[in-house]
Amino acid sequence: MKRTYPLKLAVGFALVLLASTTAQANDLLPSWSPGKTKQAIIQFVEDVTKQGSPNYVPPAERIATFDNDGTLWVEYPTYSQLLFAFERVKVLAPQHPEWKTKQPFKALLEGDMKTVSASGMKGVMEIILATHSGMTASEFSREAGKWLTTTQHPKFKRPYVKCVYQPQLELLAYLRANGFKTFIVSGGGIAFMRTVTEQAYGIPPEQVIGSRVVSEFQVKDGKPVLVRLPKIDFVNDKARKVVGINEHIGRRPLLAFGNSDNDMQMIEYTMAGDDQRMGLFLHHTDADREFAYDRKSHVGTLSKALDQAKAKGWIIVDMKKDWKTIFK
Amino acid sequence: MKRTYPLKLAVGFALVLLASTTAQANDLLPSWSPGKTKQAIIQFVEDVTKQGSPNYVPPAERIATFDNDGTLWVEYPTYSQLLFAFERVKVLAPQHPEWKTKQPFKALLEGDMKTVSASGMKGVMEIILATHSGMTASEFSREAGKWLTTTQHPKFKRPYVKCVYQPQLELLAYLRANGFKTFIVSGGGIAFMRTVTEQAYGIPPEQVIGSRVVSEFQVKDGKPVLVRLPKIDFVNDKARKVVGINEHIGRRPLLAFGNSDNDMQMIEYTMAGDDQRMGLFLHHTDADREFAYDRKSHVGTLSKALDQAKAKGWIIVDMKKDWKTIFK
Repeated sequence: MKRTYPLKLAVGFALVLLASTTAQANDLLPSWSPGKTKQAIIQFVEDVTKQGSPNYVPPAERIATFDNDGTLWVEYPTYSQLLFAFERVKVLAPQHPEWKTKQPFKALLEGDMKTVSASGMKGVMEIILATHSGMTASEFSREAGKWLTTTQHPKFKRPYVKCVYQPQLELLAYLRANGFKTFIVSGGGIAFMRTVTEQAYGIPPEQVIGSRVVSEFQVKDGKPVLVRLPKIDFVNDKARKVVGINEHIGRRPLLAFGNSDNDMQMIEYTMAGDDQRMGLFLHHTDADREFAYDRKSHVGTLSKALDQAKAKGWIIVDMKKDWKTIFK
Repeated sequence: MKRTYPLKLAVGFALVLLASTTAQANDLLPSWSPGKTKQAIIQFVEDVTKQGSPNYVPPAERIATFDNDGTLWVEYPTYSQLLFAFERVKVLAPQHPEWKTKQPFKALLEGDMKTVSASGMKGVMEIILATHSGMTASEFSREAGKWLTTTQHPKFKRPYVKCVYQPQLELLAYLRANGFKTFIVSGGGIAFMRTVTEQAYGIPPEQVIGSRVVSEFQVKDGKPVLVRLPKIDFVNDKARKVVGINEHIGRRPLLAFGNSDNDMQMIEYTMAGDDQRMGLFLHHTDADREFAYDRKSHVGTLSKALDQAKAKGWIIVDMKKDWKTIFK
C-alpha cells in the first residue's frame, strides 16, 4: 500500500507531461485558428515525419517551397519591389537627364501614375531594368536592404520587412522543426528578396529562388565584382517556377504554398509526386485586418486555382477564418 | 595521503581525455599527411569557428565551394560526362539513322576518336546536346545515375562514382562538422552530377551548381514534367563560376577548392572577401597512385594558378606529398 501514492503520482506526472507535450505541439502554430486547415497541416507533417508511417519521408527530401508576395508578405496594393523601383527612379534622376523627356520615366517623375500604369508591362520592365542594373551586386543589395527595412507600408505603418504574416512565420518554423528545408520560390527579384529573407523569415540566401538580371564578372580597381546588366536572365513565374525549383533544388517539393494562379504549376508539380504531398493557396479574405482580393485583382489574381482546388485536393487557406493574428 | 593516488589518477585521466580529444580532431583528416598543408587547413577552420576569435564567422556564412572534376573525383584521362555522352550516342544510334553519315557522330560510331577529337569543342558540344536533351529530367537522371554507378574507370577498375578522393571526403565531412555548408561548383552538368553527389559526397542536390541545358515545363499524359531541350542555358566555368555562386548561394564562399586555371576566378572572388578566407588548388603530382598533369594537360590545365599562387596566398595541395591515401 505504501507504493500506491507514489505510483499515482508517477502516473499523474506522466499525464501532465503528455498533456504539455501535446499542448506544445499545438502551440507551434498559435496564430492559426483551430479548425480543418490547421488540422490538415499538422496531420500531414506528422504523417510524413513519423518513423514507421507508410508515408514517412526522410529529412533530406522534406522540401517546402513558398511563394513570397502575398504568401509570406503583403503584396497589396502594389508589390514592394515596384515601389522600390519607382523610388530609385527619383533618386537616380539627376544622373539621367534623358528621363525628363522619356516615358514612362517622365510620367513617374511628374507623379502621373496613370500614364505609368498605361505603359503596361513593357514600361514597368523598363523601369525595373533601369533601376536594377548598372551597379555591382553588393551596391544593389545595400540599396534594396535599406529600402525594405525603412520604407513604411501605407496601411500598416510599418516597414515592408515587418509586413510578414505571423502565421506563416510559425508555419516555416514548425516545418523546420520537423526537418523540412524551407525555400522561397517567387516571381520577385532574387537579389531584392535576399537582402532580408534571413532576418524576416530565417531563410538563408541559398534557399531563395527568384527572377534575375544577367550578371557579369568584372575586375574593378583590382577587385573581382559582379555587375548587374540591364537584361532579364530569368523570370521565375508560373511554369518557370518549376524550372527554377529544378535548377536550384533539383528535387520535387513535398509541400508548396502560394496565393495566386501564378503558383498553380508549382503546386501541380508538387502534387504530381509519388508520395503524399500538400499544396496550399492563401486566399486574401480579410479586408479589415489585411486586404480582400481574388478573381479580379490586379495583383495576386486567384481564380482558376479557386475553381480547381477541390477537384485537385489543394487546400485553400482562408485568411479571415484560418488566421487568428496577421502580424506580430 | 589517501587522496594522492586518486588525484593523480584523475589528472592522468584528464590528460588522456585531452590527448584523445586532440587526436580525434586530427583523425578527422586521417588521409591527409601531416605537414604544412594539413596544418593550414586545420588552423583556418579553428580560426573562423572559435567563439571569440577575431576571425570568427557565424555558421550561416560558412560556405565552402568545391570544383568537382579533378578536385573531388578523377577527371583523367577524360571527363566522365564525356564518356557518358559517347556511350549514349551508341545506345541512341538506332533511333538516329542520320548519325551514320553526320559528323562527329559517324566517326564516334566507327570508333574513329581522332576525327571526333578533331571536331573540337563544337563537335563535342553537339554530342553533349544530342545526348543530354530530348527527354524528361527524370529520364535523364535515371540514365546518368546508372552509368556513373556501373561504368568502370580504365585505370582504377571501379565505378566512376567510387573514383572520389578519400582525403576530400574527409575534408568535406570535417568542414560540415564545423558548421560549414559544402557546395559543388563545377563546369560539369548539374543534372549529371546530382544523380550521385548525395551518395558520393553527402552533398544534396540543392548544393550542386553546374552547367545546364534549357528545361521546359510541359504536361505529358496529364502529368507535369520538365523536358530537357537541345540548347545550352548556362556554362558554369571560369568567370561564370562566380555568377553561378551568386545565383545559387548569394554569398561569398569562405573557402574554395579547385584544381585548374578554370577555378581561378572562383578562388579570386572568394579571397577578395573582407574576412579571413582560404583558396586551394589540388595539384595532380602522383603518376603512380593517380595521374600527374598540370601545365600542358588537355584536361584540368593548371599553369597560371601555379605561377600566381604564392603572391596571392593560394595553397597548392600536392597530391603525392599531402595525401596519404587517394581512394578508400
